Amino acid sequence: MADGVRSEKFVYHFEEGSAQMRDLLGGKGANLAEMSRLGLPVPPGFTITTDASVLYRESGRIPSAIQKEIKEGLECVEAKRDLCFGSAKRPLLVSVRSGAPISMPGMMDTILNLGLNRESVLGLARMTDDERFARDCFRRFIQMFGNVVRGIPVGAFERKMDRVRQSAGALGDDGLSIDDWDRIIEDFLALYEEEAGETFPEDPWDQLLAAVEAVFSSWDNPRAVVYRNMHDISHDMGTAVNVQSMVFGNRGDQCGTGVLFTRNPSTGERALYGEYLSNAQGEDVVAGLRTPKLISDLRDEMPHVYEELSRIANQLELHYRDVQDIEFTVEAGKLFLLQTRSGKRTVGAAVKVAHDMAEEGILTKEESLMRVDPEDLSILLHPSIDENLMDDPLGTGLPASPGAATGRVVFTADAAEQMTAAGRKVILVRPETTPDDIHGIAAAQGVLTSRGGMTCHAAIVARGMGKPCIVGCDQLRIDVTAKKADLGGQRIEEGDVLTLDGTTGHIYVGEVGLVEPILTEELETFLEWADEVRTLGVRANADTPDDATKSREFGAEGIGLCRTEHMFMQSERLAIVQEMILAADQASRERALEQLLPMQREDFTAIFRAMDGLPVTIRLLDPPLHEFLPDAEALREEIRNLKAEGGSRYDIALKEETLDKVMALEEVNPMLGLRGCRLGIAYPEIYEMQVRAILEGLETVKSEGIQVLPEIMVPLVSDHREYERIAELINGINTKSGDTGDYLVGTMIEVPRACLVADQIAARADFFSFGTNDLTQTVYGFSRDDAEAKFLHIYLSDRVLDENPFAVLDEEGVGQLIEMAIDKGRRARPELKIGICGEHGGEPRSIAFCHRVGMDYVSCSPYRVPVARLAAAQAHLSNQK
Amino acid sequence: MADGVRSEKFVYHFEEGSAQMRDLLGGKGANLAEMSRLGLPVPPGFTITTDASVLYRESGRIPSAIQKEIKEGLECVEAKRDLCFGSAKRPLLVSVRSGAPISMPGMMDTILNLGLNRESVLGLARMTDDERFARDCFRRFIQMFGNVVRGIPVGAFERKMDRVRQSAGALGDDGLSIDDWDRIIEDFLALYEEEAGETFPEDPWDQLLAAVEAVFSSWDNPRAVVYRNMHDISHDMGTAVNVQSMVFGNRGDQCGTGVLFTRNPSTGERALYGEYLSNAQGEDVVAGLRTPKLISDLRDEMPHVYEELSRIANQLELHYRDVQDIEFTVEAGKLFLLQTRSGKRTVGAAVKVAHDMAEEGILTKEESLMRVDPEDLSILLHPSIDENLMDDPLGTGLPASPGAATGRVVFTADAAEQMTAAGRKVILVRPETTPDDIHGIAAAQGVLTSRGGMTCHAAIVARGMGKPCIVGCDQLRIDVTAKKADLGGQRIEEGDVLTLDGTTGHIYVGEVGLVEPILTEELETFLEWADEVRTLGVRANADTPDDATKSREFGAEGIGLCRTEHMFMQSERLAIVQEMILAADQASRERALEQLLPMQREDFTAIFRAMDGLPVTIRLLDPPLHEFLPDAEALREEIRNLKAEGGSRYDIALKEETLDKVMALEEVNPMLGLRGCRLGIAYPEIYEMQVRAILEGLETVKSEGIQVLPEIMVPLVSDHREYERIAELINGINTKSGDTGDYLVGTMIEVPRACLVADQIAARADFFSFGTNDLTQTVYGFSRDDAEAKFLHIYLSDRVLDENPFAVLDEEGVGQLIEMAIDKGRRARPELKIGICGEHGGEPRSIAFCHRVGMDYVSCSPYRVPVARLAAAQAHLSNQK
Repeated sequence: MADGVRSEKFVYHFEEGSAQMRDLLGGKGANLAEMSRLGLPVPPGFTITTDASVLYRESGRIPSAIQKEIKEGLECVEAKRDLCFGSAKRPLLVSVRSGAPISMPGMMDTILNLGLNRESVLGLARMTDDERFARDCFRRFIQMFGNVVRGIPVGAFERKMDRVRQSAGALGDDGLSIDDWDRIIEDFLALYEEEAGETFPEDPWDQLLAAVEAVFSSWDNPRAVVYRNMHDISHDMGTAVNVQSMVFGNRGDQCGTGVLFTRNPSTGERALYGEYLSNAQGEDVVAGLRTPKLISDLRDEMPHVYEELSRIANQLELHYRDVQDIEFTVEAGKLFLLQTRSGKRTVGAAVKVAHDMAEEGILTKEESLMRVDPEDLSILLHPSIDENLMDDPLGTGLPASPGAATGRVVFTADAAEQMTAAGRKVILVRPETTPDDIHGIAAAQGVLTSRGGMTCHAAIVARGMGKPCIVGCDQLRIDVTAKKADLGGQRIEEGDVLTLDGTTGHIYVGEVGLVEPILTEELETFLEWADEVRTLGVRANADTPDDATKSREFGAEGIGLCRTEHMFMQSERLAIVQEMILAADQASRERALEQLLPMQREDFTAIFRAMDGLPVTIRLLDPPLHEFLPDAEALREEIRNLKAEGGSRYDIALKEETLDKVMALEEVNPMLGLRGCRLGIAYPEIYEMQVRAILEGLETVKSEGIQVLPEIMVPLVSDHREYERIAELINGINTKSGDTGDYLVGTMIEVPRACLVADQIAARADFFSFGTNDLTQTVYGFSRDDAEAKFLHIYLSDRVLDENPFAVLDEEGVGQLIEMAIDKGRRARPELKIGICGEHGGEPRSIAFCHRVGMDYVSCSPYRVPVARLAAAQAHLSNQK
Repeated sequence: MADGVRSEKFVYHFEEGSAQMRDLLGGKGANLAEMSRLGLPVPPGFTITTDASVLYRESGRIPSAIQKEIKEGLECVEAKRDLCFGSAKRPLLVSVRSGAPISMPGMMDTILNLGLNRESVLGLARMTDDERFARDCFRRFIQMFGNVVRGIPVGAFERKMDRVRQSAGALGDDGLSIDDWDRIIEDFLALYEEEAGETFPEDPWDQLLAAVEAVFSSWDNPRAVVYRNMHDISHDMGTAVNVQSMVFGNRGDQCGTGVLFTRNPSTGERALYGEYLSNAQGEDVVAGLRTPKLISDLRDEMPHVYEELSRIANQLELHYRDVQDIEFTVEAGKLFLLQTRSGKRTVGAAVKVAHDMAEEGILTKEESLMRVDPEDLSILLHPSIDENLMDDPLGTGLPASPGAATGRVVFTADAAEQMTAAGRKVILVRPETTPDDIHGIAAAQGVLTSRGGMTCHAAIVARGMGKPCIVGCDQLRIDVTAKKADLGGQRIEEGDVLTLDGTTGHIYVGEVGLVEPILTEELETFLEWADEVRTLGVRANADTPDDATKSREFGAEGIGLCRTEHMFMQSERLAIVQEMILAADQASRERALEQLLPMQREDFTAIFRAMDGLPVTIRLLDPPLHEFLPDAEALREEIRNLKAEGGSRYDIALKEETLDKVMALEEVNPMLGLRGCRLGIAYPEIYEMQVRAILEGLETVKSEGIQVLPEIMVPLVSDHREYERIAELINGINTKSGDTGDYLVGTMIEVPRACLVADQIAARADFFSFGTNDLTQTVYGFSRDDAEAKFLHIYLSDRVLDENPFAVLDEEGVGQLIEMAIDKGRRARPELKIGICGEHGGEPRSIAFCHRVGMDYVSCSPYRVPVARLAAAQAHLSNQK
């Protein structure tokens, strides 16, 4: 029951309600009421409230008090229209339509032309002077009532009608005589009686009660239940029922019906947009048998109607202060409005409308910022395909990174790199990706994997790079060694062309033209307004100079996470990195590190140049070392092959040594193993090299007059002493000139213990950055790599959890720890800088949380920076309320 | 500086101090003072305080005010002894000894016979009427002073002495003439001058100052620093220096020196225990050149001395209310006491002494309970070997589970089971163990692994079973397929006999007789006293009826954790379990579960019978399913072999199917994967079978008149809805009669999120049991399996962490969450039952924490139940203070 308060009144005339009474009257009823109140031409009618629906659900019947109110409502409509329900002279016909508080389009039932029977059909013929029309209305009503109230299949009625048409030799309905029509009606009534086990109710009142009950009941039909589950709509709300006197758009030339948007829903342009059919009813538009005309044609056909419609459209838009989607009918030259509601629009249109309405003074800038879903913005930043132009997809996976990509299939990262170098576009297809594949992801147009969830390695990296990516495509079977795959029975070989739609998860064979994203001026202005409003900073996670440049273009105010391990992954460097890891002693490890130093320095220098004037947070090496080493199983295979082929004993020994080292570094739970600052404590020389590279890079750009504020970040700290060890190491590094300028040293907060002892850590740290990916893993005890494929999908479908906590920050658990850490951290060090660099930093609801708990900034992948800018503005505005 | 307060006085005469002034006077000084105050015969002397030592460390010199106090102290001693420092007639000699507040035996320096020079040596000769004795004292002093103050090696002095002996043709010192002695002294003085670059200080005052400085400085010698690091002693404390007039036990028949325990330190028996040497100095006892006599012999040799000594020993024991370890010297028939301190004793003796002293009325029962280290009790519960009887160990690993075991080496769990069935005792030797090996561990006498840390699988299981276990033995190289190993160069083959000492981690070749543990009556009584005192319950982690019975014997008041997975591991069941896991559909899974049902029911029935009258907490299946499956690498090998040998295609396909399933269940981080209640949600039929088995077992024992309160425990809950799903499942199971009596349903709290939302979980749960192993893993982000081998040892040796958090509960982090969970849980449900079932439940400091935060019980492995009983009593007593 709406608001839990049961009203004493269950039926509202349209003039009695208003747009604010949506919970009680449903969306459609509230808007019909609002239009009536505005004096617009709405056919008279009334709304039976959601409270009545709830009572009906409880008792299984419509209480007599409500029946009485309905009867009174009907009498009032009769009076207004000067018609009489069931009359053989001037019969009143009504429509009975559902209207829930939250729109559930097409989910529930509608009955039109109610009130017809053997007598009133004659009255209708008389009144309209159209025998055929009246009979057509009656047969439509019998069919609709039979279907909706008694569940008789529509096909059964259609077969009866076809038979009459055949025997009459008529192709369309025009060829049917009055007798034919009467025969159809008798056939329909007979069919009804046979199927329903009762004669067709002649009494219009019985018809009405049955129709209202049917609409109430349709709230619980399976497709409505599924829809509410999908959209998180309460099952207890119930639906209102609108009973409205019929008007007819199908009574000749000066009649018609149509839909209208006050602005173009596809582009957002300010111009009436819509279509209509003359001499037709709403159903005919939906059925698509006739091609509708453009709304502008109405100007010529019925100029006074068009003028009135334009005026009303403008009035409604100004009244509702939003684009309206209006249904109308013209009966004998007179305009009637049947519905108005907020118009659905594309993201691009949403941005343009919000922007324009603010420019036009309809909305304030602040209001306009609330009108666009930040999540949708990401769609604007990726190439897209028109799925309507496509065949059925070959298969579907999880839509891990939006946008579309077309290219030739390759099965290895190396092949991706080579073919791209040769000027070809490629799609990297892998069972799953590891950091070893990063150069292949970088080279590819898009990535497709058969395993993994929305936050698996491929998904994260691809999102970070703004590349389309589909993961966890179960049907895809890949044989990497044979370089072939099978998807839905189709064999895919290296070089075949695939197209991925990362927005939907659909996979297509062959090439499709893609639409490149355009950052419109309106969007730029709109995001600038967001920047004016928001107090939360927005940075980007960027690992390369290219990423850094792209981030700035999208409005990032710095880098919040530069992952140094990605720099280790380029193929020419990987060999040196492996040498370093496999080193037998510290001396040879240091020799390898010396080779890496100039490379890392180059990276940092270039990133600093790109971020002139802005802060750059650099995370010291984080992942377990074995991620940089070859796979043990592959090595075993190589050794077996070498032995079988009689390879040199030296080669075999070398491989075996590598295998030993790989095995020694293998971990049961690498996520919880030797990584993060633990590496820096076990192998300080690695961190020393990285810090030296940062400081030397800083020295270089400083001499060029570039100002950057590096923030050196220690990962995976669980105790203040870990942090202090590494901070000491960092502060102990000196460059040649010693003139590096300022830099900060801080830490990632990504295990629960760091939150619990945040005061101790903050005492020595300049900043905190919440690594909510790992924090979510450890707070729940969920491995991101395993959870999504193994059990999280069950949790979500069974609603053990409402959200995937890796996608939307878990405020109750993870958030509780974050708040605790911020509180403790700031109490120990009030000037502590606090941000977030987990994937949640680009997710609107999570951003709202970050704003609320007082973080200084969020950091997200470059392509989500605009999303974050808007979400941050909205968070600020919502909080002010 | 002691207590941070600098006293105005830096020198205390023995009569001025007391036993309470240990921080200021050091342990030795405080006890010398106490004995002096009691009027016992202590040679006069004084103590220079630890404050002086701190001042000396700060300034590098002894301030003149302190020098003045020392001089005054010395004058006082001269007066008391009627001797004069440096006198050629009646010279006063003193000893200069260190004495820190916390005993650091042998870590710092001592100088005897100080005060001798070319003149006073004549005075000593005159006074003692012994020319040789005086000269021997002098040369000893030169040597000691040269060594301690100037760092001249002792060997250099000994070579000089040997040369004189040779030229004199003397074998021992008796053959040396006075001239020879004089030559030795001159040689020593010359050596000193040459090595030290200064003439030997003739002025006794200079000698004294130099000696005091040397003792102060010895606080910072490397071995003392290492010792303090090892024993967690503050480096800022400093040491006191005791200056005491010399008495001589080496001046004839009526002289001697010895040590004495007031009770037998090995057995705890009440009788003087000790040894002495007549005509000797303390050094001679230590040097071991002469065999000392038993203290009882003194009764015959010097009856009045023996009588006085007995009386004093008794007095001191009563005074200190503890066993005393006393040093004494007899000079010319007169007894002098040089030291008394609390006597070190074996665990057995500690228990007996504590028990007896309470019975004798010396201590209250409560005091006696504080006198035994609970940790030590575990030693009493395992067979032990006398390491003195052994050769050097072949190797050493981590002492993971105490006790000694001897048996024949086997390399597989199956071999362990087979050989044991054939009546042989075996030692299971593995690179590491997995749950697959559990039947082998159960069969073996002890376990040895080359990998893993103190809390690896082998360690935990072995401790749980009370079996000796050594893990992480780096030097051990095992070739499981070839059934051989290498340890310290020695080849070990299957069938060879090894002996493990799980208390020390030592590994020996061959067999040794083992001492079986005896639970003495004193221990039983003592633990009953603990039970009277403690308020914290003690339960056991027990998975089998045998474990359950053993737990009761050791005093467990219930089972706090029965791990049902261990029941799945018996070899005849494993096949069915695998069938269940590999099942293609739910129907075949249920068929396999039906086979398991009667087996699990049997287990529970037997455990319930063993625990009549007590609660039994049963945890539903927890580990990832792939733990029950064969190893992928081994399967691949089998498939390769089958193919190479031309095996049947059916067999190969079968193996390949299994491999597929194994691969599909493989997880990147199994610790955080599909396990615990996630299994119960993904495969409810498994939990249904287990609950049915529990309830049917309950039904059976109830009909036998047995009363048990089962507590069904849901593992790894992170959200209240997970718990509620499983709780609903449990409550939905009905047995035939429905007459199972009461049972509780509750949950393990083992991931941080469960603590953070404990109120929501508690709303529906009857009990919480903290799984602190997993909680520690997730709070730190440390994988127990990886951390110890990969980085935790570095953390501990570098003191990044003070303790291994898997051994001692981390109160700051993990404990903070536990307190939060208890608070939230009890607020939501005041009657919530709360316990702990992680390994920490058997560790005394962690038990004290559990008591303090208000848990109802701890649960630990059966063999640690007595430890926990005592620790719980101590926690209560400490808290009362």
